[in-house]
Amino acid sequence: MTVAEKWVPSVRYRGDHLLILDQQQLPHHTVYLNVTTIEHVWDAISKLKVRGAPAIGIAAAFGLALWSNSEKEIDHALFLNQLQKQRDYLASSRPTAVNLFWALDRVVASAERSASVEEAKKNIEAEALLIQEEDENTCRKIGEYALSLLQDGDAVMTICNAGAIATSKYGTALAPFHLAKEQGWNLSVYANETRPVLQGSRLTAWELQANDIDVTLITDNMAAHTLKTKNIKAVIVGCDRVAANGDTANKIGTFGLALQAKALGIPFYVACPLSTLDLKTTSGEDIPIEERPEEEVTHLNGVRIAPEGIKVFNPAFDVTPAEYISAIITEKGIVSGNYKEALSTLKEEEKH
Amino acid sequence: MTVAEKWVPSVRYRGDHLLILDQQQLPHHTVYLNVTTIEHVWDAISKLKVRGAPAIGIAAAFGLALWSNSEKEIDHALFLNQLQKQRDYLASSRPTAVNLFWALDRVVASAERSASVEEAKKNIEAEALLIQEEDENTCRKIGEYALSLLQDGDAVMTICNAGAIATSKYGTALAPFHLAKEQGWNLSVYANETRPVLQGSRLTAWELQANDIDVTLITDNMAAHTLKTKNIKAVIVGCDRVAANGDTANKIGTFGLALQAKALGIPFYVACPLSTLDLKTTSGEDIPIEERPEEEVTHLNGVRIAPEGIKVFNPAFDVTPAEYISAIITEKGIVSGNYKEALSTLKEEEKH
Repeated sequence: MTVAEKWVPSVRYRGDHLLILDQQQLPHHTVYLNVTTIEHVWDAISKLKVRGAPAIGIAAAFGLALWSNSEKEIDHALFLNQLQKQRDYLASSRPTAVNLFWALDRVVASAERSASVEEAKKNIEAEALLIQEEDENTCRKIGEYALSLLQDGDAVMTICNAGAIATSKYGTALAPFHLAKEQGWNLSVYANETRPVLQGSRLTAWELQANDIDVTLITDNMAAHTLKTKNIKAVIVGCDRVAANGDTANKIGTFGLALQAKALGIPFYVACPLSTLDLKTTSGEDIPIEERPEEEVTHLNGVRIAPEGIKVFNPAFDVTPAEYISAIITEKGIVSGNYKEALSTLKEEEKH
Repeated sequence: MTVAEKWVPSVRYRGDHLLILDQQQLPHHTVYLNVTTIEHVWDAISKLKVRGAPAIGIAAAFGLALWSNSEKEIDHALFLNQLQKQRDYLASSRPTAVNLFWALDRVVASAERSASVEEAKKNIEAEALLIQEEDENTCRKIGEYALSLLQDGDAVMTICNAGAIATSKYGTALAPFHLAKEQGWNLSVYANETRPVLQGSRLTAWELQANDIDVTLITDNMAAHTLKTKNIKAVIVGCDRVAANGDTANKIGTFGLALQAKALGIPFYVACPLSTLDLKTTSGEDIPIEERPEEEVTHLNGVRIAPEGIKVFNPAFDVTPAEYISAIITEKGIVSGNYKEALSTLKEEEKH
């Protein structure tokens, strides 16, 4: 990939089909899947072909639009009933990222504001497109707020890929690096490779390298030594679900990174679009943690790298308690301290 | 590998050659390299075919014996002079593990206690064999002391492989698990896979599985979540060099694990043969940290897993400051608190 291609959209809507960037084939191949059915969208989400909380939400919203466009039902009530079933089906593709449910519910609500099937179909498509468009603005604002916490020349660490391809554009945790580049700042980034699926090496290192941002790849267990010896000024991560009290579910490894940053006196920031804030989830204890197939740990590129028959624990996410989070950066501003009150206030503002 | 084969020696001395277990081929193939020259020993250490601080020391000691057995020099002074050069050559194979230098210096000192070349050659061989023999007793005692800190049914976490194949027998950090098995205790072990070279999955998981010990493999970034949710009672690790003040160099990731264990209130133990204690190194700041080739991070089994041209930081070790270590377990007893005084006392005792 060249710099000219740096904005590779994760999802493109084409009315009767979606183009979904197959992130499992990155960084070696930039391939778009031609997705024509809701089952195919479910599969793409479940198999991590599209991943990252905001991008999952966008793909799911367009999944309902694909279904809606091809649906022949002419009774309004029956159409809405079918829509709800499709919503529940797509919601079962992954359990942790709340944007999935948030986006699906926004699309269903838009359809419910219709008086006919025709109007419902229009609303569904418009809402899905709006979700994608809003996400770009959200990411840009998160990037601006995040950048206000950094200085030219800083070194920063991140995990997984909360980048442009995990969102509509810019990313969340990676947004400040892309914006810094636009401003002529030189930030350097240490990317944890993020086993088992290697989103850090395959996606973040690739995305930042493509935008000529100074990025260094490390394995996950090099974080503490790197934090201590490379003058890292901050750790910034994305999130899959933030509970009402600020507890944050994100890619496995985030919690450990937060513990290490705190022990070493380094600020730990969560970049969080308000779509990822789930006030209905009281605390981190209530966030379901997806466990994924053992093969993600025991195999790489189809080749076995661990003993036959070995027992594996493969949680895809962990929960970082709010006490380890220096600040949560949203598109409406930066929150720290009493997360519960501040986050609910921001979410209220968003609705108006 | 079956349980019957559970004691697979890492190094076997045969007078004119060594059999070195090629640990790079584990767990898929149990292959012994037929090593006939000191250059081949250097290569086996440098390329991690034999690894683990005690096993490196043993291999290096036998390396000098191989050289000595084939050496034609008949002048005593010239022989000792040549021996010193061979010692320096083998000492350059890896920089961090102090057992390498400790074992080489023991062998050289034994030769210096001779009056003839013939006697020197005998002493060299005898000293190398003694180092290997003593290591087995050392490991057993470390295992017994370590076991005194655990209870039947405990779950414990470890990183890398401080196991039987990293030593003469039993291992250091893994010794309590092998001894517990002999006693009929049920301990369960969570093994961090230990990127980039995967000693945790390829070696520890394999070694414990072969001895029918309950072992679960996780990736390194799953440590915090596992420590918090799996009722882990202790973390136990090996070491490559312990400084006079207790600061401990060990496999990359150990420092992060110590920070995480401390934050979660879980004891963090270092299993340390006194041969790995280096009183000449005042603190961890004086321990050289080996950086290894980028390909270890960017490739796995020869297949590229990261973007072309990506910058990599690949330190093979890190230093855990003594303040994060709950206790250091040696063959002479368990030390905690004022490491500086206690460790120097133990080292003195060892000499007598």
